[in-house]
Amino acid sequence: MAVNLEPPRAEDLLTISGVRLGVARAGVRKPNRKDLLVVALDEGSRVAGVFTRNRFRAAPVLVCKEHLNGELPIRALVVNTGVANAGTGDSGLRNARAVCAAVAQHLDIEPTQVLPMSTGVIMEPLPVDRIEKGLPDCIEDLAPGHWVSAAEAIMTTDTVSKEAAVSRGGFTVGGMAKGSGMIHPDLATMLAIVTTDYPLAPGEPIEFLRPAVDESFNSISVDGDCSTNDAVVLLANGASAIERTPATDLAFAAALRKTCRELAEQIVADGEGVTVLAEITVTGAADDGQAKAIARRIATSALVKTALFGRDANWGRVLMAAGSAPYNGGYAEVDVDRMTLSYNGSVVLERGAPMGVEPDVSGTTCTIGLDLGIGTGTASYLTSDLSYDYVRINADYRT
Amino acid sequence: MAVNLEPPRAEDLLTISGVRLGVARAGVRKPNRKDLLVVALDEGSRVAGVFTRNRFRAAPVLVCKEHLNGELPIRALVVNTGVANAGTGDSGLRNARAVCAAVAQHLDIEPTQVLPMSTGVIMEPLPVDRIEKGLPDCIEDLAPGHWVSAAEAIMTTDTVSKEAAVSRGGFTVGGMAKGSGMIHPDLATMLAIVTTDYPLAPGEPIEFLRPAVDESFNSISVDGDCSTNDAVVLLANGASAIERTPATDLAFAAALRKTCRELAEQIVADGEGVTVLAEITVTGAADDGQAKAIARRIATSALVKTALFGRDANWGRVLMAAGSAPYNGGYAEVDVDRMTLSYNGSVVLERGAPMGVEPDVSGTTCTIGLDLGIGTGTASYLTSDLSYDYVRINADYRT
Repeated sequence: MAVNLEPPRAEDLLTISGVRLGVARAGVRKPNRKDLLVVALDEGSRVAGVFTRNRFRAAPVLVCKEHLNGELPIRALVVNTGVANAGTGDSGLRNARAVCAAVAQHLDIEPTQVLPMSTGVIMEPLPVDRIEKGLPDCIEDLAPGHWVSAAEAIMTTDTVSKEAAVSRGGFTVGGMAKGSGMIHPDLATMLAIVTTDYPLAPGEPIEFLRPAVDESFNSISVDGDCSTNDAVVLLANGASAIERTPATDLAFAAALRKTCRELAEQIVADGEGVTVLAEITVTGAADDGQAKAIARRIATSALVKTALFGRDANWGRVLMAAGSAPYNGGYAEVDVDRMTLSYNGSVVLERGAPMGVEPDVSGTTCTIGLDLGIGTGTASYLTSDLSYDYVRINADYRT
Repeated sequence: MAVNLEPPRAEDLLTISGVRLGVARAGVRKPNRKDLLVVALDEGSRVAGVFTRNRFRAAPVLVCKEHLNGELPIRALVVNTGVANAGTGDSGLRNARAVCAAVAQHLDIEPTQVLPMSTGVIMEPLPVDRIEKGLPDCIEDLAPGHWVSAAEAIMTTDTVSKEAAVSRGGFTVGGMAKGSGMIHPDLATMLAIVTTDYPLAPGEPIEFLRPAVDESFNSISVDGDCSTNDAVVLLANGASAIERTPATDLAFAAALRKTCRELAEQIVADGEGVTVLAEITVTGAADDGQAKAIARRIATSALVKTALFGRDANWGRVLMAAGSAPYNGGYAEVDVDRMTLSYNGSVVLERGAPMGVEPDVSGTTCTIGLDLGIGTGTASYLTSDLSYDYVRINADYRT
């Protein structure tokens, strides 16, 4: 089961000049499915990436970081599904580099100009030979309009492909993502590729990407687990050639945030076992950091999530979670007598006083608003419920 | 469902001279159940308490801390079930103090010499009148041998009462606890009262209690949620009159740890929905703090816990969790190439190399041993699986 978001479909994705995509059926792990994607970038592109903070990082993540820190500009991405190339040690690194070298040869660039991304099962060797054999099809397929098939090619346990695009005065931001949210038994959970024709100088993409990721991919929770392969990449090639002003920079930052946010929502909504999407918004915290700590604690509480599944506005659990949000070695600051809590706009607690209200939480979306009445810190988090299906899928995965 | 631990039963509990217990059916929330306990201590007793770190603390916890920090020695405990007196603001504090005053009057002591403890539903006012009416029965019932009925009187959603006792050369440590582990819908989860006739000076009980609690109640996880009323109290009256030496101090510390540990195990085993008890032991960490952070992260991972329910030694999930253990604002140090991991003694990964072994995890207990190969830090954590019943109980609680 998954919540139907009616997301912006691929038709809305606008072609971005200078970005070409090509897919192939390489048979990485299973036959007859699109499982290999190459994204080729024209010269002058700027690329930034944000990667998993898990200490147990997959080989492609390590190689991406190495190549992003290298001398030469990034000119291509290669993404395979099926095998995550995680937990594969030195041979995993060699395999990731071999794939980069093969792509580079086809595109007449250097291997360090290629970013490799992999998703799928862990602890299995990457079948480099199959990927190499699939590459000519990818290269032949390269075209600016191939967003739909590209978004499909990066799916693993996803039930729908995930795309988002925003067009503003003179420029476009478009992206695709994969991630099956809570079910992810193979751990190599989330990839997102976001492209834009907005002109950015070297070093600038990461400055725009980090805050956008913080407010989107880093503000969603399905089961609180952090994968080994998570990666978000921004490709900016300036093809729009619009003249930058502080106003266009703000518009670009907002468009990037919106694109990332929509992709993140699609990931949570597609989680197997998800029956409710819930947005937790915390206001009035001592500062933004404490607001985020509290929002995250509520969003990841098993008691809050099972209550969401039961369509129960069991707000005592929200208070309990808010009171135990780890922050700076202790807990974030709360005072129950100042708290105001609402479900779907219905206030259940006003400055510590229960209102005797039973809000309607029977739908597939739910907003929980908690004002702490202490300061001006705010944060929000998108989460899902914890259902029988979540337990079934994750308990039965290998049996 | 609950795992049958065959715990030490009440018959094993030895009477501790100078500690008298009395219970009553006060009808705090439901009629005809033991729901009120008074523990009276002879003069010369030393008392220490460790309380919930949740910022949202119940009124009795606040009053306990006040009285423990007061001038006069503690001479009595009063415990009620049914209503937790949590989230009740100033009137909750007044009610907790009123109960102390009533107990003090019966025992001819001062109100600040009484520690109040409450467990049950939150956000409801404490029915002080019913408690006052029940007190004469408690006082009349006071006797050193009433451990069994006392342990029953503090049960809420528990399915079995929880007691433990250890007798060593010349002294005894005995305790009781309540806590229904993962199901706890009313949040006021855990109480434990531990008594001893070992002689301790003022200020010493807390020094012995803190490390014992760290290795027991603070090293168990059912759903990672931290309640508003958690409290562990140590009552020491020196009635054994044995002569203290460094050796007896060590023996007492070990006995206290064993008692706390057995009570903590009984709490996890009694969690509704629990079908497996798992002990996570981390060795070879950079230091003990990082070992504990990693053990806790594994013990609270929804993916690890659903795999336990599925009787699946899905060890990739353990690695994933180990790699993302929050520590000091980042993650605890791990290196997959140095990791050795075993289930029930079967090594599945040896210094990063998969062994191709499929361990038997079909039982109701499971030990997961992770050696990080980095330093000498160690820690262990007791946890349970995440089952359909957990979701059912917590989703259906109010509906």
